[in-house]
Amino acid sequence: MYDVLIVGGSCAGLSAAMTARKRNLSVLVLYAGDGAMGKITRMDNYPGLPGASGAELLRIFRQQAAALGAELKKQLVQRVLHMGEGFSVLAQNDLYEARSVILALGTSRVNPLPGEEELLGQGVSYCATCDGMFYRGRHMLVIAGGIEAVEEANYLSELGRVSYFIEKPHDTAGLSPNIRLMQGKPRSIERADQGLKLNTDGESCEGDGIFVLRPAVAMTQLMPELSTEKGSIVADENLMTSVPGVFAAGDILGAPLQAPKAVGEGNVAALAAASWLRRQEASA
Amino acid sequence: MYDVLIVGGSCAGLSAAMTARKRNLSVLVLYAGDGAMGKITRMDNYPGLPGASGAELLRIFRQQAAALGAELKKQLVQRVLHMGEGFSVLAQNDLYEARSVILALGTSRVNPLPGEEELLGQGVSYCATCDGMFYRGRHMLVIAGGIEAVEEANYLSELGRVSYFIEKPHDTAGLSPNIRLMQGKPRSIERADQGLKLNTDGESCEGDGIFVLRPAVAMTQLMPELSTEKGSIVADENLMTSVPGVFAAGDILGAPLQAPKAVGEGNVAALAAASWLRRQEASA
Repeated sequence: MYDVLIVGGSCAGLSAAMTARKRNLSVLVLYAGDGAMGKITRMDNYPGLPGASGAELLRIFRQQAAALGAELKKQLVQRVLHMGEGFSVLAQNDLYEARSVILALGTSRVNPLPGEEELLGQGVSYCATCDGMFYRGRHMLVIAGGIEAVEEANYLSELGRVSYFIEKPHDTAGLSPNIRLMQGKPRSIERADQGLKLNTDGESCEGDGIFVLRPAVAMTQLMPELSTEKGSIVADENLMTSVPGVFAAGDILGAPLQAPKAVGEGNVAALAAASWLRRQEASA
Repeated sequence: MYDVLIVGGSCAGLSAAMTARKRNLSVLVLYAGDGAMGKITRMDNYPGLPGASGAELLRIFRQQAAALGAELKKQLVQRVLHMGEGFSVLAQNDLYEARSVILALGTSRVNPLPGEEELLGQGVSYCATCDGMFYRGRHMLVIAGGIEAVEEANYLSELGRVSYFIEKPHDTAGLSPNIRLMQGKPRSIERADQGLKLNTDGESCEGDGIFVLRPAVAMTQLMPELSTEKGSIVADENLMTSVPGVFAAGDILGAPLQAPKAVGEGNVAALAAASWLRRQEASA
């Protein structure tokens, strides 16, 4: 059981991790990758690291957070569940528990396909590990949004028949020879006579279940009960969201999408989490 | 006429300066000294500069801001006046003009003496340069809050008779031999038969005017029209204060008093100032 679990390992998440460690809280940071920061070739206005690239900055931040005692793991978080006194966080194959959560995922640019959200849990799944067994011996369609999907599709192919559709171009060299690589870009999902139907550019394909495997998870999926406004999470002045014990920092809170702002919000969210945890202990 | 004049040269002010320069605005930073940051011996949670002292961090930040083209001057700002389309800023002997202002002075820990604020402009002054000439040939009492007062008292002693009271201990070796160095700590100010009376620990002293010369200026004095709440400046989500064109960042906005938060707010305030200036131009 961690004191603080931070979803996202870029500016906001790592700043939050450092401050939480300074308050002597146990910290786990789960992150999917370098995100938007990784693509910045040069920044001049991050105070203290003039001219650094986004990747350099992240390397320095991660080193510093780890040196302060934060645990960092590269895993895509799929779901945050409020469970009794704390939170359960599902990330690929693992389940973590934490007393508080800081959401620092950056801007979520996931555009669900028509039908995708409506049919979630009714044949559509975001998690091969969680739901693969339900489709043992059946035909599964995979919508792949990045190279991370390859390994999960290979796992599914051990359970049943898999047809692999590419949503965003990526290297599919590692794909199991048992998987059928399909043409046509996914466009929409609908119910079919037996199971679901995926419509692509050219044709359509029926299956028993559809696994949507993207490198990011929409906020609506990660924690549907959070209040949002214009696509950004709503938070109070201490950066606590509508769910007590869940805080937010960085681009996920909206513009300006800037490293110094994200770092500042990470700092504020971590201190707010620390004082929230203290109040919980006092009232227990 | 600067695009942005920043009052305060610590984390928030320097971060604002860097971002304003990245938006190609002309920037002047006026700062009184290293402030609270200068006293921090080691910081671990400022992302990017692990283990840095406050003084090191400020040196790096100032160098970076200057390299980006911000102008930095060590001068105590005494007054910010809203003048027509912009602002006039009085700093010791100089007057600056700017289209927008960012207040990043840190926590203002100035405690006025009883009677001081009531008698402001009625014999009490914070500015030797502005008001000295009114007391030519008269007896002036100086309440000195730091070494910066020495030079100003010397200037006053060229105009009339000066009695120097020490509010906070500092080196008075540079004081003109014409100035009378007094014993007793200042406690309160009141009206006297002719002029004002300063009461100290032990005795009291009458004079024609009283100059209060401290290294910091209370917000109530700097820009009295600003809305405040519990001692902190009120600002909206873009960090604009109750006066359009005046923004605030850092400790002046209240807790947590932390470098990463201040850096983030400086970034946000600078971007807000940039977009406010753009809107002003568009509507002109």
